[in-house]
Order: sequence, then C-alpha cells, then structure tokens
Amino acid sequence: MAAGCVIGVDLGGTKLLAGTVDSGLQVHHRARRLVESQKPAAVVELLVGAVEEARESTLDEVLGVGLGIPALVDPATGVVLDSNHLLLRDVPIRDVMAERLGLPVVVDNDANAAMLAEWRIGAARGTSDAIMLTLGTGIGGGLIVGGRLVHGRRGAAAELGHMIVVADGPPCPGRCPNHGCLESLVSGHAIGREGALVAAADPQGALGRALAAGREITGALVTELAHDGDAAARAIMTEMGGRLGLGMVTLVNVFNPEVIVVGGGAIAAGELLLAPARAVLEERALPVSREGVRVVSAHFGAEAGMLGAACMALDAAGVVVG
Amino acid sequence: MAAGCVIGVDLGGTKLLAGTVDSGLQVHHRARRLVESQKPAAVVELLVGAVEEARESTLDEVLGVGLGIPALVDPATGVVLDSNHLLLRDVPIRDVMAERLGLPVVVDNDANAAMLAEWRIGAARGTSDAIMLTLGTGIGGGLIVGGRLVHGRRGAAAELGHMIVVADGPPCPGRCPNHGCLESLVSGHAIGREGALVAAADPQGALGRALAAGREITGALVTELAHDGDAAARAIMTEMGGRLGLGMVTLVNVFNPEVIVVGGGAIAAGELLLAPARAVLEERALPVSREGVRVVSAHFGAEAGMLGAACMALDAAGVVVG
Repeated sequence: MAAGCVIGVDLGGTKLLAGTVDSGLQVHHRARRLVESQKPAAVVELLVGAVEEARESTLDEVLGVGLGIPALVDPATGVVLDSNHLLLRDVPIRDVMAERLGLPVVVDNDANAAMLAEWRIGAARGTSDAIMLTLGTGIGGGLIVGGRLVHGRRGAAAELGHMIVVADGPPCPGRCPNHGCLESLVSGHAIGREGALVAAADPQGALGRALAAGREITGALVTELAHDGDAAARAIMTEMGGRLGLGMVTLVNVFNPEVIVVGGGAIAAGELLLAPARAVLEERALPVSREGVRVVSAHFGAEAGMLGAACMALDAAGVVVG
Repeated sequence: MAAGCVIGVDLGGTKLLAGTVDSGLQVHHRARRLVESQKPAAVVELLVGAVEEARESTLDEVLGVGLGIPALVDPATGVVLDSNHLLLRDVPIRDVMAERLGLPVVVDNDANAAMLAEWRIGAARGTSDAIMLTLGTGIGGGLIVGGRLVHGRRGAAAELGHMIVVADGPPCPGRCPNHGCLESLVSGHAIGREGALVAAADPQGALGRALAAGREITGALVTELAHDGDAAARAIMTEMGGRLGLGMVTLVNVFNPEVIVVGGGAIAAGELLLAPARAVLEERALPVSREGVRVVSAHFGAEAGMLGAACMALDAAGVVVG
C-alpha cells in the first residue's frame, strides 16, 4: 500500500458502512454504525466517528474520503439537493466533512457509487456503456455512458425507477408526483404487495398459510417461497421480472449499453427475475440495440456503495485503481 | 477561411443536402440531390457527385467530409448497421467514401448530427446535458451527456422514439417489435391519423370539410388548421403535446438535462405542442430533476443535419469551431 489508502463510506437510511481501502480495492478495516437520527448534526457526528475509526485502523497515509449517500447530491458542489431518507437538504456535506476531517472529501449518490464499483471491479468491468438498477424498497439507478458516470445538470440523473412504463398506472410512492413509473410496478415493496394479494386470495397456498401463521408477507418471503418452488410465488416473480424487462426495453433503446447490472436486496431472486426480464427484452427491444446486451446480477451486495465511494476518493487523489 | 473548410452532407430517405462550411459554421455553397435509388452503388454515386459539386464551389482547402445518414452507424468503424430508409446495411460507408473522395470522412446518424448542430450553435448551445427529439414521420433522437454526444455500444443509442410509454399501447410502426413506444403515440404520422378520425366523425368540421373536398388529412394539415384556430385541430395538438410530455418525463428523470430541443417537421406546431408537453413535465417529473429544464423549438430546420455533419468534419480535422 505504498500509494496510500482511502476511506469509502456508504451512508444508508438505517446503517452506515465505512471501509479502509487500498488502491487494489482491498478492504482492510470495516467500521459499522446504525443511523439513529436523521438530523444533520447527528449524521455528521456519525460520519466523523466512523471515518476516524477507519483512519485509526491503518498506519498508511489516508489520501481522502469518498462518501455515498442516499440523496440527490450535486457532485460539483457537494451540496445535498434532496433526500427521501435523511434531513440533509441543502447541507454542504462535502465541505462540512472536509473541514471536520482535515481530508479531501468527495460525495455522490449511493446508487452512483454502487454503479462505479460494479463498473471498476464488478459485473460491468471493462465496459464503456453500462446501466445499474438496484431493486430494494424502491429502485435506484446508475449510468455509465462512454466510460463516464452520468450526473446530469445537477446530479439528479439516473432516477431509473421513475421512467414511465404505464402512463395511466398506479401512483408512484414517496415524493414522486408521477404514476405508472417503473418503481410503482416493480420493487421489493411491489413483490410483497403482490404476495399479500395472493395470500388473501388463496388461504390454502404457501403464502396464505404464512399469513395465517402471522408472518408478514414481504418481498423477501415471496422470494424465499419462489426459490423453494412454490408456483404462486414463482408466478409473482415472473410477472415482476417481465415488468422489470419493460424498463430495460426503454433503457436498451435509449442507451445501447453493453450490460445491465441488477442489484439491491430483491436480486436475491436471481434468475427468477432476470430470465423473464431477458425474455421481454428479447421480444420488444430494437434488434440492433439489444444485440449482445448482457443482463446480470450485481457482483457486490451490501459493500458496493462503500467500494464505489472508495473508488471516488482514489480517483480524486489521482491514484490509478487496479 | 484561412483554416480551410469542410463539406457537411445530410443524406435523407428522399433527398440530400451538401454544404461547403467554414470554421464559423457559415455555409458558402449548397448542393442538392433527390435520392432516386436506395441501392448502395447509386447512393455512393449520389454522395460523390454532391460532394464534388461542393468541393468545386470553393478555392479553399477542403479538410474533410462529414456525413449524416438516416441509419444506425457504428461511428468507430463507419459501417452502417441497419437502416429503415436505405439499402446500406453492412456497407462500410466511411471507408468507401474516403477512398472515392481522397478526403477524410466521418459518419454518424442524422439525428445525432442534428443534435450536434443544435448543441454547438443552436438551441442547446452552452449546455453540457441536452436532449433532442425530432418529430417527423416518426421520432428521432440525439443526446448530449456531460458535454459529449452519446453513441452507446454500437452507435444505436438515442432511439428516443422507442421508449415505452404505455406498455399495452398500439404496435410501433416499422421495424420496431415493441408496442406503446412514444413513436406509436406521437409523430407527424400520428397527428394525421388522429386528424383523419376527427374528419370522419365530424363531417361538418374543418377537418371533415377538407376530407370531403378531397384533401389528404396529414399532420401538416392538422397543424395548419390548429394555427388557424380550429378547436378540433387544436385539441389534437394538445393531446399530442401531452403525450410528448410523457416521453419528456422519462427523459428528465433519467438525464436531468438542461434543455430539451424539439425539431423535425411537426415542430411547425410550435407552442401548440410544446405548451401541453411542458405542463405534463411540470406535473409528473421529479421536482429536483425538472427544475430549470427548458423545452424549446429547434433553432435549425432542414439544415441541422448538414450543419452537424460539418461540425463532425471540423472536429475530426482538429479545427476549433466558432
């Protein structure tokens, strides 16, 4: 580690992971925290504490800090424009952290950080045009176009969950004023919702029995039953995968990418989601645009954001990764 | 013109425009041709003849030729991957033309060329993130992301007419296997189709009387009547503009652009289309993504493709435009 190391931080809505990472993207120490307050001062203290723990874990020079946060961030200014999860709106988080730490800090959206990790060392490695969809409670997105991460005018690009798929579809949850967005049709939440409908309609089925036994019908439970071979749960995953494929049709026609990487908690369903998505893509995307497009699971799970944040810090420090 | 000049060529499905263009993007000579055969050899002869005419019009050194064609082109190889309009599939048009002319040749899709012209010297000048939609018979698209034209893996990116808007919508015309694409819902063709329905349903209205008088109900006629104040024709334009706005919602959420430029023949409708499109954008796009996005008419009409092709040739020759 002659070149020094960096600290990558993935700040989520409920937990934080910081890692001491070298230029080979090896992680030497991990610091974990729970996010117990969404208030700016508390979030800053949490971040500072985790970074200091990571910093003390190494004898090597720390070149800088990369920060992935669940918010719209203007990467040019490091100011948070909006956040569904934390009360950080209009906080100049980059400058605040840099002053507290006495280290260079770079900030980006957490999904962008995850895309960066998958592109540099994961499932999209070696490509110039790649797309990432993260299926959790909602849908996050990241874009690599022509070998660069896409930010848009103010860092708000790649809101891939908010492409219109069915113009007259259901209202989108959260702060989105739209309806019929991809996120309103497919997500961990939507899988659970479909599962609850099936459970209510068929009390004798596996989902219905789980409901009667007092279990909450979540996306994770539906996924588990689908893996176990339950036909009703599998049918839900096929439907969800097909809807995901509709979003991919738009993305393939717009970007002509090399690869679409699907991550997030819901990708535990694996091929149960990806196979029907590929089938829709094959059927409906423009032939020249879809030719050779790979649709794959993310390489990194819970560490993608932290590793991507470390990549950002290494880039900012001028360290060649690899 | 001490720096020399270039020749920009816009090859359409029915006509060709070539221009001798200096580094200030001034056009000094225009050569026009009709495309009478779609066969490769005939198309090449047509191109060579027009370029030679343009070349002979100037005493200045011709530094190169830029070629915008209505086809999917791999800009890295200059090979045509597919075309709806010309029989050029798999033709290495760049190398064929360079050999015939003895000049450097660069090739790109015609909509990309139009986007480039609007970005360099037109309605998107000075931006880093811009989108162009051209509404003609169908919908063409161009994308500037982070100050660069987007091509995708094989040059097939920016097929913006083929974003899904209504998953169960009407079949897309042409070679697209999809249904409910933006192009299936809004285009010059769709405006004419809606006009024909209105004409049949209301024989006493302006459209009905035009039909009875033997006129073909085209997008251009509906636009003309809307400009004249006919309520039924205006209602069609409002509906079409709203549908266009649905496509813009997806584009704004995905790209967070600074400007969306709308060109093509159908933009003769101007604000009759753009005002309802803006209203849908305002209502349905993510607030942070849509803030400050301008939706404007193209600056260049029929010459955008030729001027953009000239920009490509100037770039390739290392000439600074402006």
